[in-house]
Amino acid sequence: MSNGFMARAIELSLENVRSGKGGPFATVIVKHGKIIAEGSNEVTSVNDPTAHGEIVAIREACRRLRTFQLSDCEIYTTCEPCPMCLGAIYWTRCARVYFANTIEDAAKIGFSDAFIYDEIRRPVTRRQLPMIPLMREEAQQAFRAWQEKRDRIPY
Amino acid sequence: MSNGFMARAIELSLENVRSGKGGPFATVIVKHGKIIAEGSNEVTSVNDPTAHGEIVAIREACRRLRTFQLSDCEIYTTCEPCPMCLGAIYWTRCARVYFANTIEDAAKIGFSDAFIYDEIRRPVTRRQLPMIPLMREEAQQAFRAWQEKRDRIPY
Repeated sequence: MSNGFMARAIELSLENVRSGKGGPFATVIVKHGKIIAEGSNEVTSVNDPTAHGEIVAIREACRRLRTFQLSDCEIYTTCEPCPMCLGAIYWTRCARVYFANTIEDAAKIGFSDAFIYDEIRRPVTRRQLPMIPLMREEAQQAFRAWQEKRDRIPY
Repeated sequence: MSNGFMARAIELSLENVRSGKGGPFATVIVKHGKIIAEGSNEVTSVNDPTAHGEIVAIREACRRLRTFQLSDCEIYTTCEPCPMCLGAIYWTRCARVYFANTIEDAAKIGFSDAFIYDEIRRPVTRRQLPMIPLMREEAQQAFRAWQEKRDRIPY
C-alpha cells in the first residue's frame, strides 16, 4: 500500500544519501493529517550519535508544539527504529509508528541496530558493554528529593 | 565504594531536582581521567523528551571532541540507562558504563523505564504501541543508494 507520508520520508532518506548528510534514514511526524516535523539522519555531518532521523524529527515536533509529549501524533519512519529511537518514541507517548525497512535490512547493509537489540535484551551482567553498579545508596537521595518535591512535573 | 565522578553526577542530579529543571538524573562523561561533559535531565524545561542526562552529556561530549563516537570514554550515570539512553550509549562505542540507581528504583518513583524495556523485548507485533509495516520495497532504494555510495561515512 502506498502512503504519501511514508513516500515523503523515503524521498528524504534518498536525498540524505545523495547529499552525504548521513545514513539512509528519515522520519516524518504527522498530527491530525498534517506533517508537523521531518528529520533525516545527521550523525556524521553534525557529529551527534543521537541524531537519527527519528530523534531529529521528535525534537523538532516538540519544539514546534512546545510540549514534551506527542500524544496524538503518528511517526512515519523509513526503517524500523533502533532501540535508542524506539525508546525515544515510547517517551513521546505517540499513537502509532509506521516503518518501511526492517532491522534485518539495516543489519545487512552494515548498521548495528540488530546487535544493540540483542544486547539490550540481555541482563546487565551478560552484555558485551561492561555496566558496573556504583554508589546506589548515595544516589537514592535525588530520588527521595524528587518524591518529596510538591511541584514536580512528571513525564 | 565511593567515586569522585559518580559523586559529581549525584550532586548534579540533586541540583536538578532542586532547580526544577527536570527529573532526578544526571550523567558525567570521563576521558583519560578527566570530565569532558556533564548532563542533567531537561525533558520538561526544554520540552525535549530525548533530553535525558545521558543524551545531553553525549551530545555535549561529541560537540567538544568533534566526533560522533566516544571510544575511550567512560559514562557515569546516576541511574541505569533507559532503553533510549542505552541505545545511544551503544552508538557512542564508549568503553564502559557506571550506574547507581536501578531501573527498578526508577519504576518505584513513577518512571516508565521498566515498561519500555518490557516492550522493547517483545516482538514488534506483540507491543502495546502499534507498529505497522509499510512500503518496504520502495524504501529499499535508499539502502541500495547507500551501498553504492563510494564516499559514504559508516558509523
